[in-house]
Amino acid sequence: MTETASRPTLEAVAARAGVSRATVSRVVNGGEGVREVLVERVRRAVDELGYVPNQAARSLVTRRHDAVAVVIAEPETRVFADPFFALQLRGISKELTAHDSQLVLLLTEGPEDYARVGRYLAGGHVDGALVFSLHLDDPLPGLIRGAGVPTVFGGRPGWADGSRGDTPTVYVDSDNRGGARDAVRHLVGLGRTRIAHITGPVDQTSAVDRLDGFRDVMVDADPRLIVEGDFTPAGGERAMRALLDRCPEVDAVFAANDVSAAGALRVLRERGRRVPEDVAVVGFDDMLPVAEHSDPPLTTVRQDIEEMGRLMARLLLRGLERRVAGEQGGQKLVGAPTSVVLPTTLVRRASA
Amino acid sequence: MTETASRPTLEAVAARAGVSRATVSRVVNGGEGVREVLVERVRRAVDELGYVPNQAARSLVTRRHDAVAVVIAEPETRVFADPFFALQLRGISKELTAHDSQLVLLLTEGPEDYARVGRYLAGGHVDGALVFSLHLDDPLPGLIRGAGVPTVFGGRPGWADGSRGDTPTVYVDSDNRGGARDAVRHLVGLGRTRIAHITGPVDQTSAVDRLDGFRDVMVDADPRLIVEGDFTPAGGERAMRALLDRCPEVDAVFAANDVSAAGALRVLRERGRRVPEDVAVVGFDDMLPVAEHSDPPLTTVRQDIEEMGRLMARLLLRGLERRVAGEQGGQKLVGAPTSVVLPTTLVRRASA
Repeated sequence: MTETASRPTLEAVAARAGVSRATVSRVVNGGEGVREVLVERVRRAVDELGYVPNQAARSLVTRRHDAVAVVIAEPETRVFADPFFALQLRGISKELTAHDSQLVLLLTEGPEDYARVGRYLAGGHVDGALVFSLHLDDPLPGLIRGAGVPTVFGGRPGWADGSRGDTPTVYVDSDNRGGARDAVRHLVGLGRTRIAHITGPVDQTSAVDRLDGFRDVMVDADPRLIVEGDFTPAGGERAMRALLDRCPEVDAVFAANDVSAAGALRVLRERGRRVPEDVAVVGFDDMLPVAEHSDPPLTTVRQDIEEMGRLMARLLLRGLERRVAGEQGGQKLVGAPTSVVLPTTLVRRASA
Repeated sequence: MTETASRPTLEAVAARAGVSRATVSRVVNGGEGVREVLVERVRRAVDELGYVPNQAARSLVTRRHDAVAVVIAEPETRVFADPFFALQLRGISKELTAHDSQLVLLLTEGPEDYARVGRYLAGGHVDGALVFSLHLDDPLPGLIRGAGVPTVFGGRPGWADGSRGDTPTVYVDSDNRGGARDAVRHLVGLGRTRIAHITGPVDQTSAVDRLDGFRDVMVDADPRLIVEGDFTPAGGERAMRALLDRCPEVDAVFAANDVSAAGALRVLRERGRRVPEDVAVVGFDDMLPVAEHSDPPLTTVRQDIEEMGRLMARLLLRGLERRVAGEQGGQKLVGAPTSVVLPTTLVRRASA
């Protein structure tokens, strides 16, 4: 067999089955409306000739589907409730569309569905994957590695770089620790002395890094002033109630994201504490509708979430191009994509 | 060639290339970290033997990927801004997950991306498609038909049933016209005489049906009392302003959905009109956070959006099972899935 002539054509199948090219195409693409007897004849000819439909044949050669999967390690209810994900997807969508690559969002009800996601990724339906909101014990990275698709992560994954096989992990993150330090230094600069922290879920590196930033400044922080939240408004409310109960003299709060800060603001108002006079509040994200429309408007640490999404997509596409160029024996491209950490900035509004 | 022995195995490729089974698998699945010289050897063996990777081979036989595409004929920004879509996706996600089928959401920036969506659907990556929010001149249905994947629509498509090829169109819809009649009759029952309608985008059948329901009751409606909206809060605001300007004596508004009713309520408050004393307002959807938290809480026509999503997925999966059973020569299954129209109910709150 020579390399070029070995693959049977659609025409060959049509001739063998005694039907038109269009009928073969409809059968192979799963189209309805072809008589069962013809479907059978085409099916037999496909089997006898070992015919591979176009797409599969094409992707065997180029390995390109012009599609990129996005996997968010959260149940779909959270994906649609938290504006963070919509913003990151907006950046991804714009960048992929500019490169005519289809955004394929794989939604799940929870971690029990990840094996299925792994199967889809391994099934040759996408060129690569963008994965975000990983938790430390997530089975997802292992499944993705098993699927063998190029991947860029949103947020630094929780494992040590290089510890996961030959391919270095590529991620896009914000300077969470530096941003947190800025937030807490700002509260110190306002003369606050009882500064509390509402954390994010501490099985995510973004939450751990922001907690570390808080501790960098508040070296001897009273442990009662650190309360675990979960990046949701309800978690912010719970944490703020716990804080006021165990430490009523609290005079400032750094919340690990804007939506939990919004929850904290609600509880402070409910308990009759004035913001910022009695308690100053700083968030993290600068999620516009949340931070601007909160009462009072929220002082926060800005990270460019949409830009993070755009960069994730750009790094992945660049890696894919590089790979194709390498395979086609073109010039050696130097410089594999490496991780990017974006700076943050403190945005002052009324709450601190 | 016999039907069963004709397809070369992974083992055969490994033997020919002189590498391990695992290496072949990694190369074929696009995995990184295999030395270029081995990649070349495997590639050559794949070509020489005409090997088809598992997934493609499997789906040629079963045509099952255990994945269903969801296509929403709106830009991704609207998909994430309008809670309607999150609710419908919730129903779809629950039903697909219960059948271990992966929800593959194909996001776009706009209609200029639909050709790419069509290519993905035709590429053999999914078993079927769920499509909603179609507009009358949408190129999407044609592209989907061309892709030849079984499809269930959310909302009645705008073409006459049966006019699109051999396969009857299957859709899930609410009784939009009957629900609209109930809303307007309620306003009439309150003694209102200047009843206006803020429509949805009239290139969508749901908007046209609600307008028809309005006209069924208000047979001689003053044309100034019908203003076009677009199912968004901003559209509701614009329409309400136009209404108050051209017909200040308006005493009731039926808005074609809850979010445009919320926009109308904001304008009425801004213009100093009391709701319901001066102007009674009824919406459509019963989208809970919107209808319950509006000021005043919204009287509206309830449709079960999550259930619509669940039913769409169920009809599609049932059709797929039926098809597979038919192909496997099993017992003849009678009763192809047919369209479903769900009833609506009027929910009374404070606004009318």
